[in-house]
Order: sequence, then C-alpha cells, then structure tokens
Amino acid sequence: MDERIREHAAVLVEWSGSIKAGNDVVIAVGEGAHELGVAVAEKLGAVGAHPVTTYVSDEIERAYLRAHDCDFDETPAHELALYEETDSVLLLVGSRNTATFADVPQEVRHAWPTEAVREAWLATDWVKTVHPTRAHAQQAGMTYEAYQDFVYDAVLRDWGAFADEMAELKTLLDAGSEVRIVKGMDDTDITMSIEGRKAVIADGSGNLPSGEVYTVPSDTTGEVYFDVPMTVQGRRVQGVRLRFEDGEVVDHAAETGETALGELLETDAGARRLGELGVGMNRGIDRFTDNILFDEKMDGTVHLAVGSAYNECLPDGEKGNQSAIHTDLITDMTREETRLEVDGEVIQCNGTFRWEEGFDG
Amino acid sequence: MDERIREHAAVLVEWSGSIKAGNDVVIAVGEGAHELGVAVAEKLGAVGAHPVTTYVSDEIERAYLRAHDCDFDETPAHELALYEETDSVLLLVGSRNTATFADVPQEVRHAWPTEAVREAWLATDWVKTVHPTRAHAQQAGMTYEAYQDFVYDAVLRDWGAFADEMAELKTLLDAGSEVRIVKGMDDTDITMSIEGRKAVIADGSGNLPSGEVYTVPSDTTGEVYFDVPMTVQGRRVQGVRLRFEDGEVVDHAAETGETALGELLETDAGARRLGELGVGMNRGIDRFTDNILFDEKMDGTVHLAVGSAYNECLPDGEKGNQSAIHTDLITDMTREETRLEVDGEVIQCNGTFRWEEGFDG
Repeated sequence: MDERIREHAAVLVEWSGSIKAGNDVVIAVGEGAHELGVAVAEKLGAVGAHPVTTYVSDEIERAYLRAHDCDFDETPAHELALYEETDSVLLLVGSRNTATFADVPQEVRHAWPTEAVREAWLATDWVKTVHPTRAHAQQAGMTYEAYQDFVYDAVLRDWGAFADEMAELKTLLDAGSEVRIVKGMDDTDITMSIEGRKAVIADGSGNLPSGEVYTVPSDTTGEVYFDVPMTVQGRRVQGVRLRFEDGEVVDHAAETGETALGELLETDAGARRLGELGVGMNRGIDRFTDNILFDEKMDGTVHLAVGSAYNECLPDGEKGNQSAIHTDLITDMTREETRLEVDGEVIQCNGTFRWEEGFDG
Repeated sequence: MDERIREHAAVLVEWSGSIKAGNDVVIAVGEGAHELGVAVAEKLGAVGAHPVTTYVSDEIERAYLRAHDCDFDETPAHELALYEETDSVLLLVGSRNTATFADVPQEVRHAWPTEAVREAWLATDWVKTVHPTRAHAQQAGMTYEAYQDFVYDAVLRDWGAFADEMAELKTLLDAGSEVRIVKGMDDTDITMSIEGRKAVIADGSGNLPSGEVYTVPSDTTGEVYFDVPMTVQGRRVQGVRLRFEDGEVVDHAAETGETALGELLETDAGARRLGELGVGMNRGIDRFTDNILFDEKMDGTVHLAVGSAYNECLPDGEKGNQSAIHTDLITDMTREETRLEVDGEVIQCNGTFRWEEGFDG
C-alpha cells in the first residue's frame, strides 16, 4: 500500500474526525475507495473505535433510484437509527465513473436519502474526503500518478499550522463590515456586507482537503465574473457573469452552459441570493480539477455560493438564506489588477495576501 | 450485465427474502459482489423497499481486527440499532481472496461482531448467497466461466416445485424414530434417534442455494467416514472418521488435517456431539467446490454437523446441543453399497431416493 494512504487515514481519524476509543463510526466507502477504507479501518482498530462499513456505490444507488417510483414518503427506520446512534461518519469518496448519475434527474437525487436521514447524517461529526481514483484523475484531465500526487499534496498538510494562518483572515473578516472584490481584467466589481457575521475556518475537520475561510454575505451589489470552469448538476458551465442588486441576481450570462445556469438560478426563491463568501487558502492545490471539494480551497481563489447559507456564520437565532441548492462559483484572484478589500483596505492583491512576501497592495 | 445476475437478484428479493414495499433491507455487499448488489438494488427499487448498503470487506475487517486489542466489551450502539430496525438482510458473499483471514486467529473472528449484534442480525429475515467471483472459482479449482455456470445452476431453480419434493423426505423423517447410514465401501454404519424431532425444509429462504432437509439427531452410535474434503477454520481436512458412543465422539481420525479436527472437537463440551443431520437434494450442484454453502446441499450427500443444534427441529421448549461451533462434515451417498434408512426402511440407495427412477433398494 502507498504509504500516503496510511497518512491520509491518520489525518482523517486523528485530526479531522478526532476519533477516540469507543466512538461509533460509520466508514462510508466509495466504489473506488477500498484501499483508503482498509487504512482507515486499521487506524480505527488502533484507536479502539467501532466501525460500521457502508458501501457508497453510485451504480447501486442509480439502479435503485431508476427502478423506484421515487415517491419516498417514508423514512427508513433502520437508516435513521444507524445515523442517530453514530458519533462520526467518514465519507471516503472514490468514484469509478463520475458520470454514473448522468441519467438520474437532479430532483430524484435530492429526494433520496430522505430529509430526516440527511439531517441525522449532518448531525454527526462527519468528514468528507476523496481517495484518488482513475475516474477522478480523468475528470481532472490528469494522469493517475499525477492526480495521486495532487490529492496528497492537498490533504497531507500541517493542519495545525495552517489553521493559525487562516485565523489571520478570520480576524479581519470578523472585524470588517464590507467586502469588495475587484478584478480589472474582467470588469468584476462587487460589494457585499458582512456586518455582524462570523467567519469560519475550514481546517480539515469537515471537508478534507480543506483550507478556506468563509462567511455569509448580504446586500450584495455589483457585477462578478467567474472564470473557473465547473460542472453544475452534471453540466459544464464556464465564464459565468452575475449582476446583483440588493442581494439578488438580476442578470446572468455564461459562455458555456447558460441554460444550466439559468435553471439553477430558477430552482427556488433563495437560489438568486448568496449563501457564502469563501476565500481559498490551500497552497497544496495548484490547479483546477473540476471537483469543487478541491477547486474552492485553492489558494488565490474566491468563491461565492448561490443558495443556502451556513447558519454558523450568523448571529445566534438569525436564519440565513434558504434554498435547495448551494452551488459554489469560483473566481481566480491571481490575475492582474485583482483586489480583495475589507472596509476599503486591500488584504489580497493579485492573489497574494498582505502578510505574504511579494504583497504589493 | 449477465442476465443471470438479474435472475439471481429476483430469486433473492422475491422468493428468498419475500421482500415487500416499505421493508427496511440491508444489502450487505461482499468485495467482489458489486454487480449482484446493483441487480438487487434494482429489484428493491421496483418493489419499493428501502435499502441500506453495507460493505462486507474481508480486507477492511482484517485490518481492523489486527490493529485492535480485541477486547470487545462494548456493543456498538449504531450497529445494533441498524439491525434491530432492519426487516431483512441480504448478504451477498463475493470474495476476492478466500485466504484473507489466514492471519487472523479464529477466536478473534468469533469476538467481532459482538454477540448482541450477531443476535440482532439473526433475528432479521436474513438470506445468505454467493456471487461467483474468480476467487471462489479458484477455491473450487474451476475456470471463472465454468464456476458462474455452476453457481447459477445451483441458484436458479424452480424453488416452489423443489420444496414439494423435499416435503416427501420431511414427511418420512417427521414420522420416523431412527436413521441409519450404511456405506459398505468405507465401513460406515451409524445409527441415530430422531424421535420427536421435526425436519426442516431448506427451500432457499435462508441460504441460497439451498436444497436440503435437516433435523437434529441424538443418541448417535457407530462409525462414519466423511469422504468429502473441506476447509475447517482455514485448514484442509479430508478423510475424517468418527466413532460415536451414546451420542458423543469417542474416537476420531483424519487422513489430512487430523490436528485441525482434534482442535475442533476440543472447542467445548458440545463440540463432540451432533447438532444436525442434513440430506442434500439440490441436483443443480454436480460437484464439490470446497464451499460448505454448496457442498452440503449437493444431491446424493448427507452431512452431520458437530456442535450447536437448530432449536427449530426440537419439541417446543427443549434446548438442543450447545457449542461455539457448528461444523458440517459430508459423506458421499452415491457410492455402491450405500443406504439411508429410516426405521429399517431404505429411503435412499446409492444416492437415489426411493421416489426417483432407478431406485434399487
């Protein structure tokens, strides 16, 4: 076994999951994630935790959903009981074919598992990671070998030291009231309020890789161009331009996938409002791979998500934007004439933070 | 997909599991059983049942057990809750290497999952089947193609008609008081009481393939030779001879694996007594494949198990032999000078039942 798989498992179990003796853990193993499953099981054995191993098979789920009438009015008692009694879920994504759900409508995928199961799952200490497979390498347009290096560079970091660095940005955002993003190259100039909001450091305890600081904006105004290509609900979308007024998308365009973008924004009332402003800071990620778990964490990027907001960023009791979607759109901040400002102060210029060498703001 | 995989899934879901809309089902998918898992999920979708898919990975379990100190004093609440709320478990065995547990001691394998989880599992409507893999083919000494044919011949039967035929033997055994097995070729002559015992038809609703009628004998006396080779707790055992007095093994020998046999019989007090007399009747099974799920069902064989007894064969309230083991030993009844008798009446001669053409008893 590649020693990096064991290191990945150690980060997952010890850092991300903080799993202790006696913890009840679900290892959710993707079709192509077997080896990481073995390494995680070994770690859980050493720690003295108790695993139940589930099989996250896209092909099995697709076969089930296509055969079912998709009237899921009952919540399965056994699935609910499993997650209600689980301390931690370690989801090991590992596709063998990232297009397996190409013929399953999005609304069917949203219907299963049921809402109650989803909530029970989210109430656990869950961690989601990716085991490098040939299918993910293919989606990234990379060789299998290069993709393995890419994943482990992103995942095997000194997360403690990294969290300290992310804390600098959190401090700025927590104290600030307004964020402005300017990109001279593509006419981006967008302003949003973060008054009273709390920034969160994503330090690898939820998603792995992680490495972003995010908050929830409001009252967004202006225009923004997202130059990073992505796959939205199975369809390619590229070169998205959004214009906001009073926090809402009032105009949109895309060079590729304009129909998909339009449908996304029509999902529900909340789909035209932002649920997240995130700043990627993971220097281990050096390219876009058409996988949001990695792309949005890349150092030198900012992402804005249309759809549901994270309540953890809001003052106690306040409820954020609600929507069935939460879709991240990414803009490259390393271009020339690019600035990220908080209350008029430049904190990142052309992709370099002000505490980094070479900052020229 | 080989159409026989879908037929196998149909037998499992409709006949073996009798699964109905709304049932909470666990699909337990072996490492090599993915395709059968897909076919089963399709059937469950059509029926309207609710699956949770678990991953039965020998390599994951081995890694966990080898790393753990194996002091399993707690029962995992999440695993217990899962099975307590489950209606049916469909276990799809499918090894990629049947020797994966070669370096895990037997007592460790018995310790996990815990007794409470095992009992909750057994309290469901469980079905155990085998998806043909290259590893199982190798264990059988067969090509993959031939092994697939072998498995589907055993599994894809008219189980309703077969159950009717098995009922003939059940009637004889239920009415009888004494069974005698004689094999002139190898000096087998053994007698056991079945007075007051109830024979059970294994018609594919537990194990699949099935096709045996079994009961629980007592007061076994005489000598029996088991000519069918087998693997006992990972070790090859062949040519076993047992001598019984007053229901207990008083002498034993084996041409191969005598140490393994001796250790088996020393497991506990119940390991020297019989827990089962079974008569194989599945004509789809035409050879021994070193897999007890198939070997013991083969038409023209009888098996005796040392160890724990099935209480379902006993009068209400009576408890049968107890032991940590239940190990089936098989004798070939198709040899010359071989007779199965009930109360002195020959019901099978040289492997042919008295209701079959060619019977010469």
